[in-house]
Amino acid sequence: MSPTSPVDPTHLVLTLSCPDRPGIVAAVAGLLAQHGGNITESQQFGDPLSGLFFMRVQVTTDAGADALREDLQALAVRFEMTWRLDVVGRPLRTLVMVSTAAHCLNDLAFRQRSENLPVDLVAVVSNHDVLRPMADFYDIPFHHVPVTAATKAAAEARLLELVEELDVELVVLARYMQILSDELCRRLEGRVINIHHSFLPSFKGARPYAQAHDRGVKLIGATAHYVTGDLDEGPIIEQDVERVDHAHAVEDLVALGQDVERRALARAVRWHAEHRVLMDGRRTIVFR
Amino acid sequence: MSPTSPVDPTHLVLTLSCPDRPGIVAAVAGLLAQHGGNITESQQFGDPLSGLFFMRVQVTTDAGADALREDLQALAVRFEMTWRLDVVGRPLRTLVMVSTAAHCLNDLAFRQRSENLPVDLVAVVSNHDVLRPMADFYDIPFHHVPVTAATKAAAEARLLELVEELDVELVVLARYMQILSDELCRRLEGRVINIHHSFLPSFKGARPYAQAHDRGVKLIGATAHYVTGDLDEGPIIEQDVERVDHAHAVEDLVALGQDVERRALARAVRWHAEHRVLMDGRRTIVFR
Amino acid sequence: MSPTSPVDPTHLVLTLSCPDRPGIVAAVAGLLAQHGGNITESQQFGDPLSGLFFMRVQVTTDAGADALREDLQALAVRFEMTWRLDVVGRPLRTLVMVSTAAHCLNDLAFRQRSENLPVDLVAVVSNHDVLRPMADFYDIPFHHVPVTAATKAAAEARLLELVEELDVELVVLARYMQILSDELCRRLEGRVINIHHSFLPSFKGARPYAQAHDRGVKLIGATAHYVTGDLDEGPIIEQDVERVDHAHAVEDLVALGQDVERRALARAVRWHAEHRVLMDGRRTIVFR
Amino acid sequence: MSPTSPVDPTHLVLTLSCPDRPGIVAAVAGLLAQHGGNITESQQFGDPLSGLFFMRVQVTTDAGADALREDLQALAVRFEMTWRLDVVGRPLRTLVMVSTAAHCLNDLAFRQRSENLPVDLVAVVSNHDVLRPMADFYDIPFHHVPVTAATKAAAEARLLELVEELDVELVVLARYMQILSDELCRRLEGRVINIHHSFLPSFKGARPYAQAHDRGVKLIGATAHYVTGDLDEGPIIEQDVERVDHAHAVEDLVALGQDVERRALARAVRWHAEHRVLMDGRRTIVFR
Repeated sequence: MSPTSPVDPTHLVLTLSCPDRPGIVAAVAGLLAQHGGNITESQQFGDPLSGLFFMRVQVTTDAGADALREDLQALAVRFEMTWRLDVVGRPLRTLVMVSTAAHCLNDLAFRQRSENLPVDLVAVVSNHDVLRPMADFYDIPFHHVPVTAATKAAAEARLLELVEELDVELVVLARYMQILSDELCRRLEGRVINIHHSFLPSFKGARPYAQAHDRGVKLIGATAHYVTGDLDEGPIIEQDVERVDHAHAVEDLVALGQDVERRALARAVRWHAEHRVLMDGRRTIVFR
Repeated sequence: MSPTSPVDPTHLVLTLSCPDRPGIVAAVAGLLAQHGGNITESQQFGDPLSGLFFMRVQVTTDAGADALREDLQALAVRFEMTWRLDVVGRPLRTLVMVSTAAHCLNDLAFRQRSENLPVDLVAVVSNHDVLRPMADFYDIPFHHVPVTAATKAAAEARLLELVEELDVELVVLARYMQILSDELCRRLEGRVINIHHSFLPSFKGARPYAQAHDRGVKLIGATAHYVTGDLDEGPIIEQDVERVDHAHAVEDLVALGQDVERRALARAVRWHAEHRVLMDGRRTIVFR
Repeated sequence: MSPTSPVDPTHLVLTLSCPDRPGIVAAVAGLLAQHGGNITESQQFGDPLSGLFFMRVQVTTDAGADALREDLQALAVRFEMTWRLDVVGRPLRTLVMVSTAAHCLNDLAFRQRSENLPVDLVAVVSNHDVLRPMADFYDIPFHHVPVTAATKAAAEARLLELVEELDVELVVLARYMQILSDELCRRLEGRVINIHHSFLPSFKGARPYAQAHDRGVKLIGATAHYVTGDLDEGPIIEQDVERVDHAHAVEDLVALGQDVERRALARAVRWHAEHRVLMDGRRTIVFR
Repeated sequence: MSPTSPVDPTHLVLTLSCPDRPGIVAAVAGLLAQHGGNITESQQFGDPLSGLFFMRVQVTTDAGADALREDLQALAVRFEMTWRLDVVGRPLRTLVMVSTAAHCLNDLAFRQRSENLPVDLVAVVSNHDVLRPMADFYDIPFHHVPVTAATKAAAEARLLELVEELDVELVVLARYMQILSDELCRRLEGRVINIHHSFLPSFKGARPYAQAHDRGVKLIGATAHYVTGDLDEGPIIEQDVERVDHAHAVEDLVALGQDVERRALARAVRWHAEHRVLMDGRRTIVFR
């Protein structure tokens, strides 16, 4: 699960998807074997609905990633594959966006530091200045980028600049209370994870805990998902719930909800960073 | 939790609600003490939103229920109370409505027999004849009441007849696939529990598991609730979830869902039968 | 997860384990590809501690199982493999042993009938006659085999006779309150699943719920495991827990415990019957 | 659940226990009514085994705590009560002991700051200097008190000094890797909460995660409990578990275990600080 540190450059993780047909695993495994690869963990799944095949394989090989890459490219053409090769446990360059709520940022930063969450937190971007001390404590550069109706376009341009300058691979919306523009969502598609403070598709939109309280629910939940143009409808990566009862006021639901939110988000970020999440239309394949 | 059997007629359970104001507990506890009552378990809750006070108390008293009742009536007038007094563990006369799915009926009947679920299953009513053998096995009279558009009114009249003839206190819709008329819902309000095969308010309406699969959710749930005119919107008693993943086909979700459904329904029926559920507008107070 | 019924004879499941080394997956997948096989689901795991490699693969092939078997045998020699090939969803011939507690038998029989649990319940064997009506209801032949100190050897001989006569592949101890002899355990090793009414390794031995109550635990659990000579120490397949509190008497713990027991047992039996459980010393690999 | 801040001095919480007999609730509620008290939340429980009665009641009264105290004292004599009166939500003066693991300290400090966990963290005491920066970040005075066999008595004396100087009401052993002496345990009995990194009573003693991995368990857990002389045997306040599988190495279990540990500990500390935990011999009553 959690990568051992420091990272071993001969331990590789390959993920791929392609139209399903006989011989894919044989071809991939054969290629890896030719390179002296030893498979340490692997999972495959064929989705009968989409007709797509998904594979994740961890392999140790002394031949090195570059030699592999060339042969994989040839295979990819033959099988119409989308694929990716990375070093197991290499920290993903990650930018975290927050507003004023600290629980998700604190949780991610703490897990990065103490639990080997394989991310490199290269920036915190916020439309408020509130969480600067926390970013300082964790030694993460903090960028205050205020957002108003008038400055929204400029703020998004600044974000994109940071993404490029810092070579950001993953953007985490850790209770960032601004809606990203459709264009930005499209440009970063598959690279932005949001934590929605509700058990989607219930209680979309504003104040879900107030809605949940009003409805008298007995469980509250949170949903971590990729961001697409349609804000609360992106592919779900992880969901979790917590039991509540009549004695919980709205502010209690919020406090309990923060626990569920940070748990679900941390799992989603870990699985994404470990290349365990593959996209299957509007659904995800999660090879845990 | 579960009542010890056989039932002890001097062990009583009192539930009440009334507008909140000082002195309620003192008055009730004082009255019980005058009758030599010893409180074995009790819970109170004042809802700051509705301004209502709720109380459930179990008490042993040699004076007997009838003597208590008279004094309670006087108290009820003074505090504008709604109240109910019953013997702890007295089985509630219960009618179960089913269509063709057996899991909830089997579960309730089995728990009644082997786990002291305090209900007396006096009838199974079904619009199909499929579950007759199961009812026979558990020695529960089975009534086949077919429903078509033309006979719906007659079928509901037959149901009401049975409710009266059999002195039914609780009706359980155990995956009964017909919608009750608004009028019937009103007449039986507070006495009908439904199990909804979804985590309400998500995926209301038909085929929730197909909807859930299509959306790629990572948890599926079920909701047990009282039936009101608005079918899927009655006060929630209990909810539960089960973890699922991309490898689960719709029929797997259905099978896993049946587990969650029967679990949530069994808890809701137990808590109702033990007089642990009080109504607070469209929410419930559950004194577990 | 659950197999679709009826069974499709061209959909096969192969499980294998062998000393870990490069080329295993390539060899297996290559062989399957030569037979026109299309992999629908697959998982691999290399245990760094034991040095063993484990694989489970589901494959559709028109070539048929017999042709595959021959080539697999050759591969097995080369890689020192233990392997097994079966048809996906073929019901495992299963014998259930019970004493007087009905919940596990009822649960397994109900799931077999309504949830496609892939077992064929060919016999219920009991040292009491109490559960005969339930076996009758589910149309499972019931064998009353009383056990006393004097007749224990004869009773075990009778059990072995039944196992052979009925071609039994799996024995489930569904709250069977007799201890099997070491010799019997050895003869049926890997084919007997027990449900232990405790969260092992806590509270081994007799009356675990009384022990748990006395200790004031806040969770109770159950453990499904393979039986070895050392009764409560066999490889664990599945565990689950339920939350409890101070208000639960021992009999409440027992009732709640029955729920956990049947849930954990049903999962373990399903995973075993779907060939998802592989043995790794005293641990299990569960490819869910 | 969580107290609203700032604290309202007329909102009181009374906890009590005494030998069970008729009239206790009537007497207490009567007394509160005489003081114009309005009960907002209350729970009672009579333990049939110990013969003790337990009560927790939240009440608003303009009369103030001092007037109540006098009358309660008289009542306490009459019923042989142990009792305590406090202001709802008043932060408990709390000292946290740590060694090098940061997750529990970080979690408690973060919840204190952002979730209204009703504690006032007056000191962090550690036998190492590692967590000083974290204490600094949260503005909690840090005391480095090294412990060797030779200095253990002096170190405990220093701890007691701090407890007295700082008027400490609660000591939390947040993964403090030193065993307290029996004498210290006795002196602070009922005021020290420990988080045990195991699902007690399983895997007592050292390296529980390695034990759990070796045994191949499918769930790992943690236990928050009061400290008594017998280290891992004090009254349990809360337990929780997390699902694991064969792919988790020991270090993964440790990481997942940290999540369970901090969750169970945070709940235990909250319930203690909210006066929801009462002692019943070696068990606890938790009025959640």
